[in-house]
Amino acid sequence: MPRYKLIIEYDGTPFAGWQVQAGLPTVQGVLAEAFRRFCGEAVQVSGAGRTDAGVHATGQVAHVDLAREWRTDTVRDAMTAQLRPHPVAVLQAERVPDSFDARFSATKRHYLYRIVNRRPDLALDRDRAWRIPQKLDAQAMHGAAQRLLGKHDFSTFRAAECQAASPVKTLEQLDVAQVGDEIRVVTSARSFLHHQVRSMVGSLMRVGEGRWSADDLEAALNAADRTRCGPMAPASGLYLAAVSY
Amino acid sequence: MPRYKLIIEYDGTPFAGWQVQAGLPTVQGVLAEAFRRFCGEAVQVSGAGRTDAGVHATGQVAHVDLAREWRTDTVRDAMTAQLRPHPVAVLQAERVPDSFDARFSATKRHYLYRIVNRRPDLALDRDRAWRIPQKLDAQAMHGAAQRLLGKHDFSTFRAAECQAASPVKTLEQLDVAQVGDEIRVVTSARSFLHHQVRSMVGSLMRVGEGRWSADDLEAALNAADRTRCGPMAPASGLYLAAVSY
Repeated sequence: MPRYKLIIEYDGTPFAGWQVQAGLPTVQGVLAEAFRRFCGEAVQVSGAGRTDAGVHATGQVAHVDLAREWRTDTVRDAMTAQLRPHPVAVLQAERVPDSFDARFSATKRHYLYRIVNRRPDLALDRDRAWRIPQKLDAQAMHGAAQRLLGKHDFSTFRAAECQAASPVKTLEQLDVAQVGDEIRVVTSARSFLHHQVRSMVGSLMRVGEGRWSADDLEAALNAADRTRCGPMAPASGLYLAAVSY
Repeated sequence: MPRYKLIIEYDGTPFAGWQVQAGLPTVQGVLAEAFRRFCGEAVQVSGAGRTDAGVHATGQVAHVDLAREWRTDTVRDAMTAQLRPHPVAVLQAERVPDSFDARFSATKRHYLYRIVNRRPDLALDRDRAWRIPQKLDAQAMHGAAQRLLGKHDFSTFRAAECQAASPVKTLEQLDVAQVGDEIRVVTSARSFLHHQVRSMVGSLMRVGEGRWSADDLEAALNAADRTRCGPMAPASGLYLAAVSY
């Protein structure tokens, strides 16, 4: 069966996450239902990352096997029609060899975390960013973030329910940059532990507000102890931005 | 009574526009109700621009007269609390002299119109931009837009229900720029006719898709005839970005 790679955007707000769960709205479930209506097939949509409830994507990647060959533009446009009214869009469809696996072939995952550093509530960016009222020092956050780069036991930044075989991961990028009142955290790695990005961002917030030094952050990492983690940043600010292959 | 200038952000989607209308949710109504809860007064919130249903603001300006002096941060923070759960935020409050009038003292209004030029539906920017599937030429749009600058009878781009005394306005800026798949139209003038920005954007879309030349746009302007206008761009892409005084 021909295999297709899909690049997918979604608003995670109304979903219980990426992965199908009985009786709950999920991105994977909505995509499978749209394929069923499009081509009458029960399709398995395999994603690169299992985003949590409320987490968004501007560049999630998935693969599907369809019974016949379709023009890739037809797949994309059919999905546009069949996904309505759900806030999920197939941005691009591409024909790929059977050896391509959205999850296992991925060499790097790229996430964006959006903080808006201001006192008033978010009107236009509600559910799209984390509002932090106290003034943050983005430069201090960026400096401290560099201490987390490289290969480490990331147990401090790992959810209790994480199913990864090992807590050792290699963090390739963790950049913090301020644009106006927005602080953007951009991070990439071959793979992340469950809740790792949100845990790192919450800990960087402690640095930004001046309660932790870069040394404190590094000590928290080295402790490999979940209780040393800062508060977990909310799902609403997190975007799966891209997946490299 | 002390007068306060407010800078206001809102998501226009759930509102029947800025201006109070009996029985309908409006931004002005929500602000007046929040002030009533904050200081127990029936407050008139006078805005710089009466945005239509579904139109957003990142920098609407209004003034209010309150019975007593408050610290401006107190006004802002009280509004943050009292405006919940509405997607309306007071970004800044400032003490101004009685001669300041949000509407009549304004020297320039700045609008942004967001087009996303792609075939797939908008997932994250739903209700935040106008999706146009056919490929647009943003450079041609920008070039043609310059023909509209200056003092003209803008009847072609004026809603039938417009209440302005004269259709003659002076357009100071109308820039079209592409960033990725987004096309941003930035425009400013002392004041605009009702539906003028959305009418100009819809007409520029005709240029972008190659159906109108810059000469056609200029001819439409010079006809001063509403029937010569392009399709009106939807409210969801329009943002009142700032007001100058």
